[in-house]
Amino acid sequence: MEGEGQQISLLDGVEDRFGGIVVNLMEVESMTVDDFDAKLDASLKAWKDQGKKGIWIKLPRELSSLVDTAIKKGFTYHHAENEYVMLTSWLPQPPSTLPCNASHRIGIGAFVLNKNGEMLVVQENSGYFREKNVWKVPTGTIKEGESIWAGAVREVKEETDIDAEFVEVLAFMESHQAVWQRKSDIFFVCELEASTFEIKKQDSEIYAAKWMLVEEYVNQPFHNKEGNEMFKLIANICLKKSRDKYTGFVLTKDSPKKSLYCRVDHANLLNETADQASTSLSD
Amino acid sequence: MEGEGQQISLLDGVEDRFGGIVVNLMEVESMTVDDFDAKLDASLKAWKDQGKKGIWIKLPRELSSLVDTAIKKGFTYHHAENEYVMLTSWLPQPPSTLPCNASHRIGIGAFVLNKNGEMLVVQENSGYFREKNVWKVPTGTIKEGESIWAGAVREVKEETDIDAEFVEVLAFMESHQAVWQRKSDIFFVCELEASTFEIKKQDSEIYAAKWMLVEEYVNQPFHNKEGNEMFKLIANICLKKSRDKYTGFVLTKDSPKKSLYCRVDHANLLNETADQASTSLSD
Repeated sequence: MEGEGQQISLLDGVEDRFGGIVVNLMEVESMTVDDFDAKLDASLKAWKDQGKKGIWIKLPRELSSLVDTAIKKGFTYHHAENEYVMLTSWLPQPPSTLPCNASHRIGIGAFVLNKNGEMLVVQENSGYFREKNVWKVPTGTIKEGESIWAGAVREVKEETDIDAEFVEVLAFMESHQAVWQRKSDIFFVCELEASTFEIKKQDSEIYAAKWMLVEEYVNQPFHNKEGNEMFKLIANICLKKSRDKYTGFVLTKDSPKKSLYCRVDHANLLNETADQASTSLSD
Repeated sequence: MEGEGQQISLLDGVEDRFGGIVVNLMEVESMTVDDFDAKLDASLKAWKDQGKKGIWIKLPRELSSLVDTAIKKGFTYHHAENEYVMLTSWLPQPPSTLPCNASHRIGIGAFVLNKNGEMLVVQENSGYFREKNVWKVPTGTIKEGESIWAGAVREVKEETDIDAEFVEVLAFMESHQAVWQRKSDIFFVCELEASTFEIKKQDSEIYAAKWMLVEEYVNQPFHNKEGNEMFKLIANICLKKSRDKYTGFVLTKDSPKKSLYCRVDHANLLNETADQASTSLSD
């Protein structure tokens, strides 16, 4: 084996707070397979001797020639994004306690009401509902780093050109094996209030779009077919909401990185309650 | 270029309903780099001629030697799981409309009340709260394919050996750049009712566990420090709930693959309302 008997430099690793090592090669522009092979061997031996546990190697797309070497030495894929793949190896005996990858995709359905109390519905060019003649609420997937409420507003604008404001989350549904066979999906039903009226549909995704009476939407034959009970429940929640008999979770506190959704009555009384709590203990 | 002038077989691809091709090599045990290289060239040319759009190649860990070839031909990583990497290429002009990878990790915090109205709190051996002397609710991450309510029950049992039943979701918080620098996290605050009393803490993760008065939990100095407002809001929601002044989203309908959470009053009245809706339109 090459390198035996001479000093081989180790891979540059940073300790994490769980007793592991993170090797980030994103800034490395080139490394030969032989060089990586020798360094990885020496590094793994050193890390094992030091009692390190989880090893992480972040390989940029430009170093894809090194993936095979890491896999052959016992690494597995952890996750990947467009421009890199993250590989992991757990050095102690199993079980591994490495954290799992992102497990869910977040979808939104937008229940958009106009000032006449009508709701915004669309038919799509592709996907599950295509050619089923079903009117549905605008739906979409949250983008990387986008908040649920913002994603709902954006999708409505993109699909129909309607400007709308987020009101609240009415309900949410979790579905398993929904994405890539093993990822789950959480679909947040969001109420929005439209501030414009004229619809201009987006042609590539949307076949038709219009305003519709909520009762007509709820009573589409589709909702009464077996297997569609969840759709009917959600439609009924929208109906109740349009009749002022349902409230959901408003956006209580929002910042660029964090959003908290809870009951509106709590949002209104929150500070008062906090003061009461402090008092009750200091008495 | 090898293969020119002779017939090269294409990669086995299945059409998807969005005008794309999915090549699944999970059952292929071996393929040489040269063979893959020639087949991929020929396939890409054929697919482009046929007007195909998104190309997906699912490569098992055993074929990691082929990753580099696909990347060099313009593929990018889409996502990866332990045993495979998914590569994609978008053949038409940009923009690509390929669906995004899973974007969120789902966490739970369990507000567990016993029959005395006390709540279950823990201190952890590692992580953000370590050595901060803060009592926190049991928390954890949802596993692949696990439902939110089930994950909350499991985490409480694992960390403290307390058996508990899911009551409802009290609130949820979304945090960006929370996982792997670009993934988001949704933290569901779940209320549980304990059916056992004796705590046996799990030693590797948990430093201490006990029952505590809700007021004492809420009034910990940690909650009043700047930057911890979200924690305080969540603590106050728990306090309100313990005083019967807050309701959240119950599990309205649950099946192995789907769970719908909504307001309890709606859950109770759902069938009645559905009937009313049908009647109102047929009148």
